[in-house]
Amino acid sequence: MSIYTAPQQDTIFVLDQLVELDKLAARYALEDVSVELADVIVQEAGKLATDVLAPLNAEGDKHGAVLVDHCVEQSPGYKDAYQQYIDNGWAGLTGPTEFGGQGLPNVLGTAVNELWHSANMAFALCPMLSQGAVEALIAHGSPELQAHYLHKLISGEWTGTMNLTEPNAGSDLAAVACKATPKDDHYLIRGQKIYITWGDHQMTPNIVHLVLARLPDAPAGVKGISLFVVPKYLLSEEGEPTELNDARCISLEHKLGIHASPTCTMSFGDNGGAIGYLIGEPNKGLSYMFTMMNHARQSVGLQGLSISERAYQQAREFAKDRTQGTHKDGKKIAIIEYPDVRRMMMAMKSGCEAMRALSLYAAADIDKHHHGDIDAKQRVEFYTPIVKGWMTELSQEITSLNIQVHGGMGFVEETGAAQHFRDARILTIYEGTTGIQALDLVGRKTLSDEANALSQLLNDINNTVIELAASTDKTLQQITPRLTLALQKATTVKNWLLEQGKLDRQLTANVSVDYLMMMGYLCGGWLMAKSALCASKLHNQDETHDKSVQYSDEFLIGKKGTAHFYAEYYLPRVYQHADTILSGLSSTFSLDIDQL
Amino acid sequence: MSIYTAPQQDTIFVLDQLVELDKLAARYALEDVSVELADVIVQEAGKLATDVLAPLNAEGDKHGAVLVDHCVEQSPGYKDAYQQYIDNGWAGLTGPTEFGGQGLPNVLGTAVNELWHSANMAFALCPMLSQGAVEALIAHGSPELQAHYLHKLISGEWTGTMNLTEPNAGSDLAAVACKATPKDDHYLIRGQKIYITWGDHQMTPNIVHLVLARLPDAPAGVKGISLFVVPKYLLSEEGEPTELNDARCISLEHKLGIHASPTCTMSFGDNGGAIGYLIGEPNKGLSYMFTMMNHARQSVGLQGLSISERAYQQAREFAKDRTQGTHKDGKKIAIIEYPDVRRMMMAMKSGCEAMRALSLYAAADIDKHHHGDIDAKQRVEFYTPIVKGWMTELSQEITSLNIQVHGGMGFVEETGAAQHFRDARILTIYEGTTGIQALDLVGRKTLSDEANALSQLLNDINNTVIELAASTDKTLQQITPRLTLALQKATTVKNWLLEQGKLDRQLTANVSVDYLMMMGYLCGGWLMAKSALCASKLHNQDETHDKSVQYSDEFLIGKKGTAHFYAEYYLPRVYQHADTILSGLSSTFSLDIDQL
Repeated sequence: MSIYTAPQQDTIFVLDQLVELDKLAARYALEDVSVELADVIVQEAGKLATDVLAPLNAEGDKHGAVLVDHCVEQSPGYKDAYQQYIDNGWAGLTGPTEFGGQGLPNVLGTAVNELWHSANMAFALCPMLSQGAVEALIAHGSPELQAHYLHKLISGEWTGTMNLTEPNAGSDLAAVACKATPKDDHYLIRGQKIYITWGDHQMTPNIVHLVLARLPDAPAGVKGISLFVVPKYLLSEEGEPTELNDARCISLEHKLGIHASPTCTMSFGDNGGAIGYLIGEPNKGLSYMFTMMNHARQSVGLQGLSISERAYQQAREFAKDRTQGTHKDGKKIAIIEYPDVRRMMMAMKSGCEAMRALSLYAAADIDKHHHGDIDAKQRVEFYTPIVKGWMTELSQEITSLNIQVHGGMGFVEETGAAQHFRDARILTIYEGTTGIQALDLVGRKTLSDEANALSQLLNDINNTVIELAASTDKTLQQITPRLTLALQKATTVKNWLLEQGKLDRQLTANVSVDYLMMMGYLCGGWLMAKSALCASKLHNQDETHDKSVQYSDEFLIGKKGTAHFYAEYYLPRVYQHADTILSGLSSTFSLDIDQL
Repeated sequence: MSIYTAPQQDTIFVLDQLVELDKLAARYALEDVSVELADVIVQEAGKLATDVLAPLNAEGDKHGAVLVDHCVEQSPGYKDAYQQYIDNGWAGLTGPTEFGGQGLPNVLGTAVNELWHSANMAFALCPMLSQGAVEALIAHGSPELQAHYLHKLISGEWTGTMNLTEPNAGSDLAAVACKATPKDDHYLIRGQKIYITWGDHQMTPNIVHLVLARLPDAPAGVKGISLFVVPKYLLSEEGEPTELNDARCISLEHKLGIHASPTCTMSFGDNGGAIGYLIGEPNKGLSYMFTMMNHARQSVGLQGLSISERAYQQAREFAKDRTQGTHKDGKKIAIIEYPDVRRMMMAMKSGCEAMRALSLYAAADIDKHHHGDIDAKQRVEFYTPIVKGWMTELSQEITSLNIQVHGGMGFVEETGAAQHFRDARILTIYEGTTGIQALDLVGRKTLSDEANALSQLLNDINNTVIELAASTDKTLQQITPRLTLALQKATTVKNWLLEQGKLDRQLTANVSVDYLMMMGYLCGGWLMAKSALCASKLHNQDETHDKSVQYSDEFLIGKKGTAHFYAEYYLPRVYQHADTILSGLSSTFSLDIDQL
């Protein structure tokens, strides 16, 4: 089974050098927030991740959640682990202080969430979904609803779920058919929801379902969907769980991966109607979902990094231990010494570092937006589909490389490499498929925006290119022409998109995923180049220079190495996707359906 | 569960137009062999594949082979299916007539094998491994061994296995430790072998193990390995199975996929020694393995096509049926109408067609080589790692796209999409990992060959480019500049490799997999372009023109469409890999092992 340790040094480097956490804390007067604090927090979280959550990961795969009499029994050991997780205060890390949270910025929460998902993605989905319920209630819930639910959700005493999908309403939520009928001070909810993550379990005394449903007089389509709170147990006047609501899990999916995360079919109102409470105004459910969407989608993107990091660590340990062949002196050769295995290790490591840089960079923009920065809002909107789409797609490749490094043993389940590969496969699907992310990116975030956000980003990248070009560091000089070319290609693509957006939107839709992937590899290359610039500066600084964090020379030189590898290995994919984009994939519809 | 039908028309098109089967038959005076015969054979094989083998595929995944008292019980229904397979004469299709085979060319066997692996890869592995034993015995077995074993292996009455790998001898066969001690007219074999496909089962009255082992006085390393026949049941003088040999399966692997294919740990000689018979001369085992290697590796490459075709067919049917959203007139929209889903369908279809073209083209060269064509031998050597490496890597992507098209349902095991994805994952590993194929391609097949085979291939591609450039067909004109650029890039790579091969072999090893993948995409693009040229000619021919096969206009236009899509979508990957190759991935070793 694979072990896991937090990538402490790299996380802190990104928070310190790319995110510039100390400046951010100063700008928004976030008391106590600092790189130093982050260091302590990540270290503490790392302990729980390594000691408690990671060892349960394979166990949960073998003994997944099961349904007994409409009650989901979570995997063995998960209830205890969850109790430790909330006892140590991790659930409320970023929750508002007025509801008992610790009020730390999202970027810190993201750094910590990376560890949970690496250690045990199936487990960490539970608090991740609760977070969505918290956000919805903070943003749109009445003071009464907030008073009833927020404290317990933020402390983790209760968990939350999101009930969106129905058998005929997957990517298209306009088809939501679940019904809500007003009665007294509440509503009666009737209908079925599928793919409800952690829809039931016995880890907490209550579960708070957020449910999309239609009022009787609601308009058709997405403008007639409302959002409701439906607790598993109804609350007494004192806010304590009492009798069971009319909502239950009627089946569990038998899935390729994340077996410890119960994926429920939830039935509401089998006995007359589940009692629900409207969040905000009628018919605004979908727009409320959108307010949570950036965070939720970035969280899934983050899972792409997490599972990749876990896979990387496993492959690294195996490749160091496993020998094949002998040196001339008779010493066994560890396979990590072979060029192609080393290439795979570098592809995994540099990919993870690029994803970590992007996820924390984008997460910090959510904080800036939260504090009123309008430009940051635009960036959040633009980054979100890239973080979600690109990082989850790249995680497919990196978890597959882990199997490849293991050779035949990778295909044997006991090794554990296959689990990460299976678990990862959901990531490009849930919370909006890669295709949905790509349409969002090319449509709402680029063409409707007249490529303003894109232009701003390309401008930022250009500033890095200028800085790179001025450097005398030999490694950086290797990176410069590659990033320059990538930037040129992306600029050509921008102009093409703007032109085609007016002429033929069909073509921009054909190439939307290529555009998303191009932007992902470009953002990764840019932030890796920025990282290398920072590392180079730090490396050249006087030892006595005042630094908040000390980095070893090995780390700083290593950072330049992974940035260099990224430029050689991943940046050519920017050119590749650009070439495909500029063709408009004009042949996409060249065959009729019957010819396929 | 997914259904499967043979891609009859495309297989025949490739055999007819690219392979030019009728000319090949005439050249080597292969009586009865013709495109017409191929059409009948593929149709008949298609029936067994669709009606018998395909429906057992999901069943075998759910109820994999199990070990009971050292005996492997195959999945339910597999014994009957195997009996039908041999009763209908499929096992001996390409076996020599002197041993009861039908003596048909390898290219026809390959066309048919594609169907078996599509229908049920776990099942088809059994005859595939038998084929290896047959080849070894034909090429190197004594007349006595041939007389005892070949008829029954070729008829399929018995099956064969290949016992190479040991716990410490995976990619490095020099470490083989299994021992063979001479005794009377035979040898006593002792040792353990792992990952033995179909190492035991109850489908046939005997199993013929081919085992690599060392004689007592054998030199160390690969030059001291000999090859033995070790039957499960010893034979009477009349050649009938009698008592059990000292060879048994002691455990089965619990694998990510191909559950119906028992992957055995075989123990030889637990009770004194398994009786084995030397094949050919002592210490030549590895070189004997090499004589089978081209066919064996191409067979695994073919599995990449097969599983991709199966995945494609499943995705296509789902995408036609599944609706999301509504047209303005209220009609439901099938998801196949959405641009990104259509892109995925085209990526799958054009990928499969390119793989089919390459696998049959390369398979025909094995026939030509068999009939003494020296140039064909060189081509076989060069194509083999590409067929094996590229096609199995591409199958990872295509089986993953099938899941993606299915959305959330793809992640649910009952859908069956996940099985194809899981099954496919072994393909880049067994019969030599992609890394091993790539080293073979860049080393023995390119640098040691002074790029002769490569130059010849690039010359062939150039002839196609010239033909394309002369065409007035508008679709072909779209393909021309893309293939031209791909050829230029590959030529630059060739020159770089020849130069670097002298200066620094380290760099050529770093980029070996990129080189393999580049060549795969290039070969695919070339053969798709050739296919489009043929389709264009056929389409413009007079209706009354004498043709051995009639193709519908829809098919011929469709073929041009998939070739066009391939050029837009896959050829840019040639440029991408070329760019990476030309960097030499000089940063591969920029981090020490401790920095990883």
